[in-house]
Amino acid sequence: MTRGLVNEIYMYFCPMTKLVLVGTGNLARQLFTAFQGAGELKIIQVVGRNPDALAYFDALSVTGPITGITDEGDIYIIALSDDAICAVSESFNFRNKLIVHTSGSVAMSSLPVTQRRGVMYPLQTFSAGRKPDFTRIPFCIEAEHTDDLQILHDLASNISGRVLELSSEKRRVLHLAAVYANNFSNHMFFLSGELARQAGLDTEVLFPLIEETVEKLRALSPYEAQTGPARRQDEGTINQHLELLKDPLQRQLYSTISNSIKQTYDKKL
Amino acid sequence: MTRGLVNEIYMYFCPMTKLVLVGTGNLARQLFTAFQGAGELKIIQVVGRNPDALAYFDALSVTGPITGITDEGDIYIIALSDDAICAVSESFNFRNKLIVHTSGSVAMSSLPVTQRRGVMYPLQTFSAGRKPDFTRIPFCIEAEHTDDLQILHDLASNISGRVLELSSEKRRVLHLAAVYANNFSNHMFFLSGELARQAGLDTEVLFPLIEETVEKLRALSPYEAQTGPARRQDEGTINQHLELLKDPLQRQLYSTISNSIKQTYDKKL
Repeated sequence: MTRGLVNEIYMYFCPMTKLVLVGTGNLARQLFTAFQGAGELKIIQVVGRNPDALAYFDALSVTGPITGITDEGDIYIIALSDDAICAVSESFNFRNKLIVHTSGSVAMSSLPVTQRRGVMYPLQTFSAGRKPDFTRIPFCIEAEHTDDLQILHDLASNISGRVLELSSEKRRVLHLAAVYANNFSNHMFFLSGELARQAGLDTEVLFPLIEETVEKLRALSPYEAQTGPARRQDEGTINQHLELLKDPLQRQLYSTISNSIKQTYDKKL
Repeated sequence: MTRGLVNEIYMYFCPMTKLVLVGTGNLARQLFTAFQGAGELKIIQVVGRNPDALAYFDALSVTGPITGITDEGDIYIIALSDDAICAVSESFNFRNKLIVHTSGSVAMSSLPVTQRRGVMYPLQTFSAGRKPDFTRIPFCIEAEHTDDLQILHDLASNISGRVLELSSEKRRVLHLAAVYANNFSNHMFFLSGELARQAGLDTEVLFPLIEETVEKLRALSPYEAQTGPARRQDEGTINQHLELLKDPLQRQLYSTISNSIKQTYDKKL
């Protein structure tokens, strides 16, 4: 038998799951890389508006306008900004397909009722040029139908070691948690770096401190690990710090976070 | 010659620098461990009020009340809380010794004028049970006299690979930077964990995200690494998040940090 025939017979008995990826941004690229060659999967199409962005996926059938989307996919993964999910998915010219979005804060019900709806939200931050280790990224899945939940579980398990079922409501709370864990902590590192510069130092002087802050969490909960003037209710140092901050918003930020720390330990003393 | 005699001759020609450590808390313990056996140093006394805490340093001459402090030290390192530095150092019954404190926010001038004053501030967070890698911790030093600055440089270089000269004023700004890098980011991790629990999940589900947040900083500045609804000025998601937060202080915290992120990118667009 020729290799082509073997493949055809194999595909007949063990058909590949055909994926369609909608979107060409950071997350779409990371999912593309992660799913390529994983398990019995085949990405049959990547759909996006931007021809330059589509060039990234050049080994594959890529299309321009969303109207060119194939109806031959088994699972459609929408990796678009929150605003675009609803409108783009409404424009699909087929029905009753399993379509999932990847957003933390958009409800599953935002997808069209004419489809089998689901969500597959990776709890991670994606930036261009960073290749995160998908095996460690928790995937939060949700589906209208039990069968589809199993399909999404199998799909996510191809690339991640941690798959969690989560309702839209709880996913929204987890997304908020992610804003604190990543967006807000990153902004603290930014503000810290600006102050280091003000002291005439390179921001990398802070790196061992930042690393130890996170390393500590392996042994201590953040509740136990908390130190500093607000934890000690050391008003002298707090006031001294406020005097160093000239911008009203920055003073408010320092005060509010310090008050939140004080409240945390007041409550539980 | 006996080993004792060899030691005596050696000590005559290459005298050890005699350290006195004032304090028995986390930092005192970490410095004790780091300085023990480092270079030509000998910790000749540890002074503290708490007999239980002193037991930690049992291999050494330890004393109780501060009045028992020896006048035979070359360098006195005060590792006490900010409030105690001034009063305790005022009570030393000797003059013209090199005494340094280890605080980020206390001015060198808080030490008594009757002594040779200095500062040796390690930019790190110290918790019981954690053994930080001192070789990577930046030490910020300051001294009234040039000779003493050299002595402190040599002393700190025994345990750290990074010694920086910094005025009291700049050290205060760096200490404020450390509050953001450690205390405030840790509080973000705490609040994030509380929200994950609210979603019915273990807080460790956030760990890969927290790790990637810090890992990213090796390749991108926090300015470049920033993502999330405030960065995108995505008011829909911001309002959705505010609705999830019931506590007024928590709503204020979310708004203020989001406003600070928005301001950061408004200014520089």
